[in-house]
Amino acid sequence: MAGLRVAVVQFAPVFGDRQRNLATMLALLDAARPAHVVVFPELALSGYFFQSRQEVAAVAEPADGLLLRRLQQEARWRRQILIIGFPEQANGRLYNAAALLLPDGDRAVVYRKTHLFYKEKLCFDPGDTGFLVVDVPEYDVRIGMMICYDWRFPEAARTLALQGAELIVCPSNLVTEAWEMVMPVRALENKVYLAVANRTGTEERNGERLVFRGKSAIYGYNGTVLCRAGERETTVLIADIEPQRTRSKAFDPLDDIFADRRPEHYRL
Amino acid sequence: MAGLRVAVVQFAPVFGDRQRNLATMLALLDAARPAHVVVFPELALSGYFFQSRQEVAAVAEPADGLLLRRLQQEARWRRQILIIGFPEQANGRLYNAAALLLPDGDRAVVYRKTHLFYKEKLCFDPGDTGFLVVDVPEYDVRIGMMICYDWRFPEAARTLALQGAELIVCPSNLVTEAWEMVMPVRALENKVYLAVANRTGTEERNGERLVFRGKSAIYGYNGTVLCRAGERETTVLIADIEPQRTRSKAFDPLDDIFADRRPEHYRL
Repeated sequence: MAGLRVAVVQFAPVFGDRQRNLATMLALLDAARPAHVVVFPELALSGYFFQSRQEVAAVAEPADGLLLRRLQQEARWRRQILIIGFPEQANGRLYNAAALLLPDGDRAVVYRKTHLFYKEKLCFDPGDTGFLVVDVPEYDVRIGMMICYDWRFPEAARTLALQGAELIVCPSNLVTEAWEMVMPVRALENKVYLAVANRTGTEERNGERLVFRGKSAIYGYNGTVLCRAGERETTVLIADIEPQRTRSKAFDPLDDIFADRRPEHYRL
Repeated sequence: MAGLRVAVVQFAPVFGDRQRNLATMLALLDAARPAHVVVFPELALSGYFFQSRQEVAAVAEPADGLLLRRLQQEARWRRQILIIGFPEQANGRLYNAAALLLPDGDRAVVYRKTHLFYKEKLCFDPGDTGFLVVDVPEYDVRIGMMICYDWRFPEAARTLALQGAELIVCPSNLVTEAWEMVMPVRALENKVYLAVANRTGTEERNGERLVFRGKSAIYGYNGTVLCRAGERETTVLIADIEPQRTRSKAFDPLDDIFADRRPEHYRL
C-alpha cells in the first residue's frame, strides 16, 4: 500500500481581494502537484481581520459559490483533495468555514469553525456542523477538519479521532505562539497525522495589527515534525504519510490509548 | 495574598520494603519543610513492578492503615498537605491509589488510578473514584489528583480543571519519554499548575527491566517549567505558585478557554 502525499500551502492572502487570492492559490496548486491532499490556510480566499458582519457578508459565498466551484474543478482535474478556508454565507448566517473538495465530488463538504477567536466572535456565527470526518476510499484515508483556535481545545482533535480521523487538517491564521507546543501533542495524544496550514503576513485594521506566524507544519502520529516552514515565506510543504498506521491505537500488547479510555469518568 | 509553596519528591522506592520506603520519605519530608504541599511518586510506599494480585495484596493497606496513619501525623505536625502514592486494599479490591492527607484531616482523601498501565492491568482493579478535586480553604487552593498514565488522556486533567482544580498533582512512575512533551500542555490547555513527582531507579522482575525516568517537574499554568529534576538524583524540588491566577480562564477581553468551550459538539 503506497503512502498518501499531503501538502500544506503557506502564503499571505490579501484582505478582501478574492480574485487575487484565488489566482495565488491556483499558482501554488501547481507547486503542490505531487500531493493527494492539499491544505490551504483559514479564510484563504478572503483574508482574515474582519471588523463587522457587514464586511464578512461582502465577501462570503455559499459552498457552491463561484470561487469554490472553480476550485472544485481543480480538484477534479488534478485528482486532488483540496481543503480551503473561506467565509461562508448560508441561510442568512456567516461562518468561518473550511471546504473539503473531493476529486469526484459534486459539492464541498463544509466544516464551520466551532471555536471562534477574538473578533471573529463579532463577525461570524458559531459553527453548527460539529467536527466532521470525511472517508475517502479512493485514497484509503479518513480526514478530519478543524480550524485554527480549535487547537486550544483538546476535545476538538479528540472528537475527530474518535470518529475515525487518521489525518486532521487544520487551516489556520495563527497569531500566537503557544500552538507550536500544543499541535504536536494533538497528534500524539490521538495517534493521528496533523497538517497545519498557517498563513503569513500582517493585517492592520482600525489601528490594530495582527502578525500571522507562518511555521506551517505536518506532524507525524507520534508528534514528530515531518516538515515545517519558516515564519515568512510563501511555500508548499509536502510529506508522505501512512494513514493505515494510525488505525491501531495499541502501543504494546496490554496498552491501547483508545481502548484504555474510561469515558464514564470524563466530564464534558 | 502570599503564594503557595509546592514540593515534589523524587527518589527510588525499594520494591516490597514498605518500612524502608517510609523511612526514606520521612527523611525527604525534612528537605521539603518549606513547602505547603508535598507530592511523592506513585506507589512510593511499595515500589512498582508487581507481577500478580497476590504480590500487591501482600503490601497493600487501607487508607487508614498503619503507614498512612503515620504519614497523616506528619501532615498534622508539619502543617503540610501530603500526596502519597500507595497500593490500597479496600473491600477486597486492590487499587493503585494516591492519598491526599490534610493538616487537619482525620483520614486520607483517596484517588484510585483511572487508567491502569501495562501489567498494572493484571494486578490492580481499575479506579472507581473518578477524578477528585480537594478544596483546601486554609491554603486557598483546590488540588486535583491524577496518577502517571492518566497524563496520556486529555480528559483526565480536563475533568479536574473543569471541577475547579488549580493545582494538579501527579504521582508518577514514568518509564517512557513522550510525557515530557505532553505534561506542559496539560497545564497550558487547562490553565492550571501541574506538579509531577516521578521516581528514579530500576526494577527487574521475571527478566523484564523497567527504568524510571526521573525528571520530576512543576509546570506553570502556561506550560512553562518552573523547576525540573535530573534523571537519576534523589531530590526535592520546590516552587512558589499562585493558584488564584488560574481562576480566570480569559486571556483577552473576548477569549476565555473555558467559556469558549462548546461541549455540545464534543464526543466522549
